[in-house]
Amino acid sequence: MKKLINNPEFVVEEMLQGMVKAYPQYVKKLEGYNVIVRKDAPVKGKVALVSGGGSGHEPSHAGFVGKGMLDAGVAGNVFTSPTPDQIFEAIKAVDGGAGVLLIIKNYTGDVMNFEMAGEMAQTEGINVASVIVNDDVAVENSTYTVGRRGIAGTVFVHKIAGAKAQAGGTLEEVKAVAEKVIKNVRSMGMALTPCIVPAAGKPNFTLADDEMEIGMGIHGEPGTMRTKLMKADEVVDHLMSKILKDLPYNSGDEVAVMINGLGGTPLMELFIMNKRVSEILDQNGIKVYKTFVGEYMTSLEMAGGSITLLKLDDELKELLDAPADTPAFKQL
Amino acid sequence: MKKLINNPEFVVEEMLQGMVKAYPQYVKKLEGYNVIVRKDAPVKGKVALVSGGGSGHEPSHAGFVGKGMLDAGVAGNVFTSPTPDQIFEAIKAVDGGAGVLLIIKNYTGDVMNFEMAGEMAQTEGINVASVIVNDDVAVENSTYTVGRRGIAGTVFVHKIAGAKAQAGGTLEEVKAVAEKVIKNVRSMGMALTPCIVPAAGKPNFTLADDEMEIGMGIHGEPGTMRTKLMKADEVVDHLMSKILKDLPYNSGDEVAVMINGLGGTPLMELFIMNKRVSEILDQNGIKVYKTFVGEYMTSLEMAGGSITLLKLDDELKELLDAPADTPAFKQL
Repeated sequence: MKKLINNPEFVVEEMLQGMVKAYPQYVKKLEGYNVIVRKDAPVKGKVALVSGGGSGHEPSHAGFVGKGMLDAGVAGNVFTSPTPDQIFEAIKAVDGGAGVLLIIKNYTGDVMNFEMAGEMAQTEGINVASVIVNDDVAVENSTYTVGRRGIAGTVFVHKIAGAKAQAGGTLEEVKAVAEKVIKNVRSMGMALTPCIVPAAGKPNFTLADDEMEIGMGIHGEPGTMRTKLMKADEVVDHLMSKILKDLPYNSGDEVAVMINGLGGTPLMELFIMNKRVSEILDQNGIKVYKTFVGEYMTSLEMAGGSITLLKLDDELKELLDAPADTPAFKQL
Repeated sequence: MKKLINNPEFVVEEMLQGMVKAYPQYVKKLEGYNVIVRKDAPVKGKVALVSGGGSGHEPSHAGFVGKGMLDAGVAGNVFTSPTPDQIFEAIKAVDGGAGVLLIIKNYTGDVMNFEMAGEMAQTEGINVASVIVNDDVAVENSTYTVGRRGIAGTVFVHKIAGAKAQAGGTLEEVKAVAEKVIKNVRSMGMALTPCIVPAAGKPNFTLADDEMEIGMGIHGEPGTMRTKLMKADEVVDHLMSKILKDLPYNSGDEVAVMINGLGGTPLMELFIMNKRVSEILDQNGIKVYKTFVGEYMTSLEMAGGSITLLKLDDELKELLDAPADTPAFKQL
C-alpha cells in the first residue's frame, strides 16, 4: 500500500486537523468529533445544511463547508457511515434557529444514521428535514444501498440548496429546491483501478491490466459491466446513453454538466471526457449552461470518473450561479 | 497503460477542446495552435502574462487563464516544451499594448523557446519581458535543466504578477513583483509512483512497491534520494528541512503554503501532509498567512506531492489576496 499517511487508524482525524490548519478562514472542527462546521456557525436565522458520509470522498463533504453551501460536513471513517451521535452534534452546532436540512447520499447506513440523528435533534426542539440523493443511474440496489446510490450529483444539491439557504429561504423552501435538484440530476461513473482503504491495506476488488468497470460505485461497488479497456469516447458514449434516457433529457433542455474525477485521474483525461460529452449533448439538442470539471466526489486514489447532468430551469440557474466561498468550491 | 484517452497522439488537442467546451466563459483557443487565451484577449492597456510548458501538468497552465492571473497558457506536447511559433502566436494574441511578461519554468527547452518567441515579438514592436521560475530546492541541474527546476511555486508567480497586472501595473512593475515572488518561493516534492506519457505507453522510470523517491521532478527527473516507504510525517520533515534552510525562512516570517498533489494523490493525503507542515512552521515561529491544498502543478497520474513556501510582505499579501477568476484558481 503506497500512501502518504502515518497510522492507517488515524487518517480521518489527521486529515481533518490538516484541513482546519489549511482553511481557518472557512472552517473549524467540533471538539471531540470528526465534524467540520462553518467558522461562523451557527449562522443566526439561516437554514443550516448538514451533509457527510464515509471519508475517502474528499473534497466531499467538508470541503464544501462555507458561505453559500454547507454548514457542516460529518466525516465517518473511510467508506463508513458517520454515527448518529456525530451527526447529532453537527446539527446542534449549526442550527441557527431556522432549522436544519440533512443532505444524505442513498446508502443504507447513512440514511439510517442521519435520520436517527434528525430524530434526536427534533426531540430537542430543532426543526430538521432531510433529502436523499440517489443520482447514480448505473444499478438499482447495490452493496451498501437499497435503491440507487448517491454520487457526484450530491454536490449540485449542496450548491443549489446552499444558495437558497444563504438567500434566506425557509426550511421548506430549501428542502423543496433540494428535491427539485434530486429530481433533475443523474450521474454514472466508471473505474480503471480500485482503491485501497488505509485500514484494510489492500484493494477491495481487482481489475486486470486490460480491464475497466462501468457503473462502479464510489466505494468500489460492482457496476453494470466489466469490460476490456475502451477508448474514452466509447466509455463516454456508454455512460451518456444511460444517463440521457433515464430522466430523460430532451432536445431543448438546458443542463449543468459535472465531469468528476475519482481521485487518481489526471485532469487531462477529464477534459477529454468533456469533449465527447459536449459533442453528444450538442447532437441531442441539449444546451450546456455551465460545466464543472475536477474532483468533487472521489474514491481515494481510484482512477476513473463520473458524468453528472442536471436539468436546469430559471430558479436552478440563478441558484447555481450565486456566489459560493468554500475550500473546494468557489464562485465569484 | 490505463488511461481514459482516445489516440495517444492527440491527447493535448482533445484536452484543450474539452477545456474550451467546459469554460467558454473564461477562455478560447487560438485557431490552429495549442494556445488558450482569455476570452476577452487582448485586454487593452493591461500588461499580459503568458506562461506554459509541456502538457501533463494540468491545471497548469491553461487552467489559470482568466481575470487576475494569466492571459495565455501555451501547451506543448506532453512533457515537451512548446515551440517558439506557438509562444509567439500567444504573445501576439494577448498583447494589449502595455507589453507582455513571459513566466517561464526553468527547463532548458522552455527557456530557449520562450526567449526566442520573445525576440520574435520584440522585432514586431511588442514590448516583452521574462522571468524564470526555479523554486525546486531538490537538486542543482537535472535531466532537462541547468540550474534548479521550476515547479509548483510558479502558480504563486501567476497569481501575484497577475494581480499586479490586473491592478494596472506597468510591465516593469509586474516583472519586479514576479521577481520578488521568485526570490522568496521555494518548493520540494516527492513521488510514490511514476506516470506514463501517453505516447510512450510505459512509465519513464520504476519504483518498487516499497519505494518512494524524494526530490523527484515533475517529469520524473531523478530526485535526491530513493528510499523505502516512510510515514507522511517523516517525508514532510525531510522536505521541510531542505526548504526551510534554503531561503532561509526564519522565525517571525509570514508565509503562504501550497500543498500540491501530483495527480494521483488523494486530497486526504495532502491534508495529512499539511497537518505536519503547519506543526513544523509553528515550531519554527513562522506564521502561516494562507494555505492552498490541491492539484496545481501535476505530473499526469503520478502519486506524490510537493510543498511550497512563499515568504510574504505587505505587497505580496495584498496581491495574493486580490480576487482571481479562472477555471482552476478562484478567489473572492
